[in-house]
Amino acid sequence: MSKSTAAAVVRAFCKAWEDRDVEAILATLDDAVVFQNVPAPAVHGLAATRDFILPIIRETIAIDFELLALAVNEHGDTVLTERLDRLHYPSGVVEIPVMGVFVVRNETIVEWRDYSDFASIGEAFKRVGVSLGSA
Amino acid sequence: MSKSTAAAVVRAFCKAWEDRDVEAILATLDDAVVFQNVPAPAVHGLAATRDFILPIIRETIAIDFELLALAVNEHGDTVLTERLDRLHYPSGVVEIPVMGVFVVRNETIVEWRDYSDFASIGEAFKRVGVSLGSA
Repeated sequence: MSKSTAAAVVRAFCKAWEDRDVEAILATLDDAVVFQNVPAPAVHGLAATRDFILPIIRETIAIDFELLALAVNEHGDTVLTERLDRLHYPSGVVEIPVMGVFVVRNETIVEWRDYSDFASIGEAFKRVGVSLGSA
Repeated sequence: MSKSTAAAVVRAFCKAWEDRDVEAILATLDDAVVFQNVPAPAVHGLAATRDFILPIIRETIAIDFELLALAVNEHGDTVLTERLDRLHYPSGVVEIPVMGVFVVRNETIVEWRDYSDFASIGEAFKRVGVSLGSA
Protein backbone atom coordinates (compact mmCIF):
# COMPACT_ATOMS: atom_id res chain seq x y z
CA MET A 1 0.00 0.00 0.00
CA SER A 2 1.39 3.41 -0.92
CA LYS A 3 1.79 6.33 1.45
CA SER A 4 -0.82 8.29 -0.47
CA THR A 5 -3.33 5.43 -0.10
CA ALA A 6 -2.92 5.40 3.69
CA ALA A 7 -3.28 9.19 3.81
CA ALA A 8 -6.37 9.02 1.58
CA VAL A 9 -8.04 6.51 3.93
CA VAL A 10 -7.50 8.81 6.92
CA ARG A 11 -8.69 11.85 4.97
CA ALA A 12 -11.82 9.88 4.01
CA PHE A 13 -12.32 9.02 7.70
CA CYS A 14 -12.10 12.73 8.62
CA LYS A 15 -14.41 13.76 5.77
CA ALA A 16 -16.98 11.15 6.83
CA TRP A 17 -16.96 12.71 10.35
CA GLU A 18 -17.49 16.15 8.77
CA ASP A 19 -20.36 14.67 6.74
CA ARG A 20 -21.69 13.16 10.00
CA ASP A 21 -22.13 9.94 8.04
CA VAL A 22 -21.81 7.01 10.45
CA GLU A 23 -21.81 4.34 7.73
CA ALA A 24 -19.11 6.20 5.79
CA ILE A 25 -16.99 6.48 8.97
CA LEU A 26 -17.43 2.76 9.68
CA ALA A 27 -16.59 1.92 6.04
CA THR A 28 -13.05 3.26 6.64
CA LEU A 29 -12.60 0.99 9.68
CA ASP A 30 -11.69 -2.69 9.74
CA ASP A 31 -14.15 -5.13 11.36
CA ALA A 32 -11.47 -5.86 13.98
CA VAL A 33 -10.51 -2.20 14.50
CA VAL A 34 -8.97 -1.37 17.87
CA PHE A 35 -9.94 2.14 18.99
CA GLN A 36 -8.36 3.78 22.00
CA ASN A 37 -9.05 7.19 23.47
CA VAL A 38 -5.72 7.14 25.35
CA PRO A 39 -5.42 6.56 28.31
CA ALA A 40 -8.89 4.96 28.44
CA PRO A 41 -8.95 1.23 27.73
CA ALA A 42 -9.03 0.15 24.09
CA VAL A 43 -12.35 -0.69 22.46
CA HIS A 44 -12.33 -3.75 20.19
CA GLY A 45 -14.32 -4.21 17.01
CA LEU A 46 -16.65 -2.24 14.81
CA ALA A 47 -19.77 -2.60 16.98
CA ALA A 48 -18.12 -1.15 20.10
CA THR A 49 -16.49 1.61 18.05
CA ARG A 50 -19.87 2.43 16.51
CA ASP A 51 -21.28 2.80 20.03
CA PHE A 52 -18.67 5.50 20.66
CA ILE A 53 -19.26 7.32 17.37
CA LEU A 54 -23.05 7.16 17.08
CA PRO A 55 -24.11 9.45 19.98
CA ILE A 56 -21.65 12.12 18.83
CA ILE A 57 -23.03 12.08 15.29
CA ARG A 58 -26.62 11.97 16.51
CA GLU A 59 -26.36 14.87 18.97
CA THR A 60 -24.19 17.26 16.91
CA ILE A 61 -25.48 19.60 14.22
CA ALA A 62 -22.09 19.99 12.52
CA ILE A 63 -18.54 18.66 12.87
CA ASP A 64 -15.17 20.01 11.69
CA PHE A 65 -12.01 17.95 11.83
CA GLU A 66 -9.37 20.59 11.12
CA LEU A 67 -6.21 18.76 10.06
CA LEU A 68 -3.34 20.87 11.42
CA ALA A 69 -0.79 18.28 10.28
CA LEU A 70 -0.82 14.85 8.67
CA ALA A 71 2.17 12.59 8.05
CA VAL A 72 2.67 9.00 6.90
CA ASN A 73 5.51 6.90 8.30
CA GLU A 74 8.26 5.34 6.15
CA HIS A 75 6.50 1.97 5.91
CA GLY A 76 3.43 3.73 4.52
CA ASP A 77 1.07 2.00 6.95
CA THR A 78 0.77 4.49 9.81
CA VAL A 79 -0.73 7.96 9.57
CA LEU A 80 -0.21 10.51 12.33
CA THR A 81 -2.44 13.56 12.65
CA GLU A 82 -2.62 16.75 14.66
CA ARG A 83 -6.22 17.95 14.63
CA LEU A 84 -8.61 20.45 16.07
CA ASP A 85 -11.92 18.59 16.22
CA ARG A 86 -14.95 20.85 16.63
CA LEU A 87 -18.24 19.30 17.67
CA HIS A 88 -21.10 21.73 17.12
CA TYR A 89 -24.05 21.06 19.43
CA PRO A 90 -27.24 23.11 19.45
CA SER A 91 -26.04 24.53 22.79
CA GLY A 92 -22.48 25.38 21.68
CA VAL A 93 -19.21 24.14 20.26
CA VAL A 94 -16.79 21.70 21.89
CA GLU A 95 -13.21 22.18 20.63
CA ILE A 96 -10.93 19.17 21.03
CA PRO A 97 -7.19 19.67 20.47
CA VAL A 98 -6.02 16.14 19.70
CA MET A 99 -3.40 14.04 18.01
CA GLY A 100 -4.33 10.70 16.51
CA VAL A 101 -2.52 7.71 15.04
CA PHE A 102 -4.07 5.42 12.44
CA VAL A 103 -2.64 2.09 11.32
CA VAL A 104 -3.98 1.27 7.85
CA ARG A 105 -4.01 -2.22 6.31
CA ASN A 106 -5.76 -3.25 3.07
CA GLU A 107 -7.12 0.27 2.79
CA THR A 108 -8.94 0.12 6.12
CA ILE A 109 -8.04 1.46 9.55
CA VAL A 110 -7.10 -1.38 11.90
CA GLU A 111 -5.88 0.77 14.80
CA TRP A 112 -7.00 4.26 15.82
CA ARG A 113 -5.62 5.97 18.90
CA ASP A 114 -6.41 9.55 19.93
CA TYR A 115 -4.38 11.49 22.51
CA SER A 116 -5.94 14.45 24.32
CA ASP A 117 -6.48 15.95 27.76
CA PHE A 118 -9.64 14.41 29.21
CA ALA A 119 -10.29 16.92 32.01
CA SER A 120 -10.25 20.06 29.86
CA ILE A 121 -12.36 18.36 27.17
CA GLY A 122 -14.78 17.11 29.84
CA GLU A 123 -15.11 20.73 31.02
CA ALA A 124 -15.83 21.83 27.44
CA PHE A 125 -18.61 19.23 27.15
CA LYS A 126 -19.99 20.31 30.51
CA ARG A 127 -20.09 23.96 29.37
CA VAL A 128 -22.45 23.03 26.52
CA GLY A 129 -24.42 20.67 28.74
CA VAL A 130 -23.50 17.48 26.87
CA SER A 131 -22.62 14.28 28.74
CA LEU A 132 -20.80 11.57 26.80
CA GLY A 133 -20.08 8.26 28.48
CA SER A 134 -16.78 7.49 26.84
CA ALA A 135 -15.65 10.73 25.15
CA MET B 1 15.43 20.57 4.13
CA SER B 2 14.87 16.89 3.44
CA LYS B 3 12.41 14.67 5.27
CA SER B 4 15.28 12.61 6.66
CA THR B 5 16.92 15.77 8.07
CA ALA B 6 13.76 16.74 9.95
CA ALA B 7 13.41 13.19 11.27
CA ALA B 8 17.07 13.16 12.32
CA VAL B 9 16.63 16.37 14.32
CA VAL B 10 13.69 14.88 16.25
CA ARG B 11 15.57 11.62 16.80
CA ALA B 12 18.50 13.65 18.15
CA PHE B 13 16.09 15.48 20.47
CA CYS B 14 14.77 12.15 21.80
CA LYS B 15 18.28 10.72 22.18
CA ALA B 16 19.38 13.82 24.11
CA TRP B 17 16.48 13.23 26.53
CA GLU B 18 17.57 9.60 26.93
CA ASP B 19 21.14 10.85 27.57
CA ARG B 20 19.65 13.32 30.10
CA ASP B 21 21.85 15.95 28.46
CA VAL B 22 20.14 19.33 28.86
CA GLU B 23 22.58 21.17 26.60
CA ALA B 24 22.14 18.55 23.86
CA ILE B 25 18.34 18.85 24.14
CA LEU B 26 18.53 22.65 23.93
CA ALA B 27 20.91 22.39 20.96
CA THR B 28 18.09 20.82 18.92
CA LEU B 29 15.75 23.73 19.75
CA ASP B 30 15.61 27.17 18.13
CA ASP B 31 16.20 30.23 20.34
CA ALA B 32 12.62 31.27 19.61
CA VAL B 33 11.14 27.78 20.12
CA VAL B 34 7.48 27.66 21.12
CA PHE B 35 6.76 24.71 23.42
CA GLN B 36 3.24 23.72 24.39
CA ASN B 37 2.12 20.94 26.64
CA VAL B 38 -1.39 21.05 25.17
CA PRO B 39 -3.80 22.35 26.51
CA ALA B 40 -1.53 24.34 28.87
CA PRO B 41 -0.47 27.75 27.51
CA ALA B 42 2.52 27.83 25.17
CA VAL B 43 5.97 28.63 26.57
CA HIS B 44 8.08 30.96 24.44
CA GLY B 45 11.84 30.82 24.00
CA LEU B 46 14.74 28.66 25.03
CA ALA B 47 15.07 29.96 28.60
CA ALA B 48 11.46 29.19 29.52
CA THR B 49 11.64 25.80 27.80
CA ARG B 50 14.85 25.05 29.70
CA ASP B 51 12.97 25.79 32.95
CA PHE B 52 10.51 23.03 32.01
CA ILE B 53 13.19 20.51 31.02
CA LEU B 54 15.80 21.06 33.73
CA PRO B 55 13.94 19.77 36.83
CA ILE B 56 12.95 16.59 34.95
CA ILE B 57 16.54 15.88 33.94
CA ARG B 58 17.86 16.76 37.40
CA GLU B 59 15.45 14.58 39.37
CA THR B 60 15.36 11.49 37.12
CA ILE B 61 17.94 8.72 37.15
CA ALA B 62 17.09 7.47 33.64
CA ILE B 63 14.77 8.39 30.78
CA ASP B 64 13.40 6.37 27.84
CA PHE B 65 11.57 7.98 24.95
CA GLU B 66 10.14 4.94 23.19
CA LEU B 67 9.21 6.02 19.66
CA LEU B 68 6.11 3.98 18.79
CA ALA B 69 5.72 5.84 15.49
CA LEU B 70 7.40 8.71 13.68
CA ALA B 71 6.30 10.34 10.43
CA VAL B 72 7.32 13.41 8.45
CA ASN B 73 4.74 15.44 6.53
CA GLU B 74 4.88 16.02 2.76
CA HIS B 75 6.58 19.41 3.09
CA GLY B 76 9.33 17.76 5.10
CA ASP B 77 9.16 20.34 7.89
CA THR B 78 6.84 18.74 10.43
CA VAL B 79 7.52 15.53 12.36
CA LEU B 80 4.75 13.74 14.22
CA THR B 81 5.52 11.20 16.91
CA GLU B 82 3.68 8.68 19.05
CA ARG B 83 5.80 7.99 22.12
CA LEU B 84 5.88 6.26 25.45
CA ASP B 85 8.06 8.50 27.61
CA ARG B 86 9.35 6.81 30.76
CA LEU B 87 10.81 8.99 33.51
CA HIS B 88 12.70 6.88 36.02
CA TYR B 89 12.86 8.49 39.46
CA PRO B 90 14.59 6.92 42.48
CA SER B 91 11.07 6.28 43.85
CA GLY B 92 9.59 4.73 40.69
CA VAL B 93 8.79 5.13 37.02
CA VAL B 94 6.34 7.61 35.46
CA GLU B 95 5.02 6.37 32.09
CA ILE B 96 3.66 9.06 29.80
CA PRO B 97 1.68 7.97 26.71
CA VAL B 98 2.01 11.00 24.45
CA MET B 99 1.93 12.24 20.89
CA GLY B 100 4.10 15.17 19.88
CA VAL B 101 4.47 17.41 16.85
CA PHE B 102 7.73 19.13 15.94
CA VAL B 103 8.12 21.86 13.31
CA VAL B 104 11.72 21.90 12.12
CA ARG B 105 13.37 24.84 10.35
CA ASN B 106 17.08 25.22 9.52
CA GLU B 107 17.71 21.94 11.33
CA THR B 108 16.32 23.19 14.64
CA ILE B 109 12.95 22.68 16.28
CA VAL B 110 10.90 25.90 16.19
CA GLU B 111 7.64 24.42 17.51
CA TRP B 112 7.10 21.49 19.88
CA ARG B 113 3.65 20.49 21.04
CA ASP B 114 2.90 17.42 23.18
CA TYR B 115 -0.60 15.98 23.61
CA SER B 116 -1.40 13.82 26.64
CA ASP B 117 -3.90 13.35 29.46
CA PHE B 118 -2.84 15.60 32.33
CA ALA B 119 -4.90 14.01 35.11
CA SER B 120 -3.67 10.44 34.65
CA ILE B 121 -0.06 11.63 34.28
CA GLY B 122 -0.45 13.82 37.36
CA GLU B 123 -1.61 10.70 39.23
CA ALA B 124 1.45 8.80 38.01
CA PHE B 125 3.75 11.57 39.29
CA LYS B 126 1.89 11.57 42.61
CA ARG B 127 2.35 7.80 42.97
CA VAL B 128 6.14 8.23 42.87
CA GLY B 129 5.97 11.33 45.08
CA VAL B 130 7.25 13.76 42.46
CA SER B 131 5.67 17.20 42.06
CA LEU B 132 6.40 19.04 38.83
CA GLY B 133 5.10 22.57 38.38
CA SER B 134 4.39 22.44 34.69
CA ALA B 135 4.62 18.79 33.65
